[in-house]
Amino acid sequence: MNAPKLGRLLLVPTPLDFGIHGAGESPDLQDHLPLGVIRQAAALDHWVVENAKTARAFLKRVDAIVPLATPLQALTIRELPRQAKGTKNATLPDLDGLLAPATAGHDIGLVSEAGLPAVADPGAALVQAAHRLGIAVVALPGASSLLLALAASGLNGQSFAFVGYLPIEEQARAARIRELEAASRRVAQAQLVIETPYRNATLLGALLDHLQPATRLAVSNGLGAPTGWSRSDTVAAWRRQPQAMANDVPAVFAFQAD
Amino acid sequence: MNAPKLGRLLLVPTPLDFGIHGAGESPDLQDHLPLGVIRQAAALDHWVVENAKTARAFLKRVDAIVPLATPLQALTIRELPRQAKGTKNATLPDLDGLLAPATAGHDIGLVSEAGLPAVADPGAALVQAAHRLGIAVVALPGASSLLLALAASGLNGQSFAFVGYLPIEEQARAARIRELEAASRRVAQAQLVIETPYRNATLLGALLDHLQPATRLAVSNGLGAPTGWSRSDTVAAWRRQPQAMANDVPAVFAFQAD
Repeated sequence: MNAPKLGRLLLVPTPLDFGIHGAGESPDLQDHLPLGVIRQAAALDHWVVENAKTARAFLKRVDAIVPLATPLQALTIRELPRQAKGTKNATLPDLDGLLAPATAGHDIGLVSEAGLPAVADPGAALVQAAHRLGIAVVALPGASSLLLALAASGLNGQSFAFVGYLPIEEQARAARIRELEAASRRVAQAQLVIETPYRNATLLGALLDHLQPATRLAVSNGLGAPTGWSRSDTVAAWRRQPQAMANDVPAVFAFQAD
Repeated sequence: MNAPKLGRLLLVPTPLDFGIHGAGESPDLQDHLPLGVIRQAAALDHWVVENAKTARAFLKRVDAIVPLATPLQALTIRELPRQAKGTKNATLPDLDGLLAPATAGHDIGLVSEAGLPAVADPGAALVQAAHRLGIAVVALPGASSLLLALAASGLNGQSFAFVGYLPIEEQARAARIRELEAASRRVAQAQLVIETPYRNATLLGALLDHLQPATRLAVSNGLGAPTGWSRSDTVAAWRRQPQAMANDVPAVFAFQAD
């Protein structure tokens, strides 16, 4: 008896417009995702997701374009284990269990809340587990807000770093901003950071307080939404001409020392 | 008399499959790009491009799905100035001239050879010029091979750096690999590098020679093509089980110290 052929782990991108559109609005998924990706998503029976509720909402948008092979209620949708801060080495979640459909021969889709799974989002540990089990990992083409923001910034696209969130505490945040600006100057590298939307204005203020006037600062707010905008300017120009920021729309901040 | 309303600079993603498919094959553009992006591309009359020949091939693929508003021969297609190595501060190319259609009120599309313009590709200087002239910059959603490779690697998607190409000279390359591995260990940051395809195998060999056995190395080769693959393993495991690499297919290399 032969071992069953393994299924694959498909990393399925989702639109960047999550949470930006109001209820009742129904933006066209085909503005955001290739039809080929929508087709592959519609064919899957097994999902591992960051959040089951938003994954179902995504799959309803898929179904409106390419009917799901299996009805939504009959799909297997399992959530990634949530990892509380500071518990990094506490209990190893049962990732192999989440991958059981693939070891039994079925493809599995992985989705996060918005954009690419496992990039600035959970999922990397599951991807590592898949590689360990010999399950092929396939990243389907889709947008990441980080790289759209970088492209729109005009900063160095040949050398850049994403460092996630800055500290919330004011002095630690100021020190980190100066540290990243120094690193940026040393190796001419664009530095990308994100923040939870309700702290957008606070982070922008801190960046304008602590970066040097000649440093170039770029902000993209609401990427993927019609109301989204990108601005790239020196810190001195941002100070002269302040900009309001929505506190409920995701933003990406990038800067590079002169 | 009012000043004319400015056009926008649209950063138009292109498929990652450039150069992977043989002549005669005609992969479906809708496997790679959202229909909304294809529609916006089809509506543009003015283009600034990395390479006019491949831009025309791309626009033919667009036209097959959404007919171009203006026939291909009647489009304005201008190439970005090529910047020879070592001439960084030589002559400032006339980027404002390339943006003249936007100052006259027309949208301009910017495309590179594959993926997102201005990310690991030319275009950033044009984007900066657009911001300086008050021209809105809009990054349309599309994939970057860098972040697909990162997602498929299972390495740290919360902190990563892309540093472009490594030195070609053997000793300088070895030193740079060790330097990046040390940086990766210090801040738990995934490091991404690329190479011209015909040196893929050489770079893989150098990484296996100079990285520590416990460092995790991920390679994605031919992302976006049906024959593409991603492998993520410790350096020790790569050494035990070597892998051939095509010398004509783009690859992304990522590693992270243990």
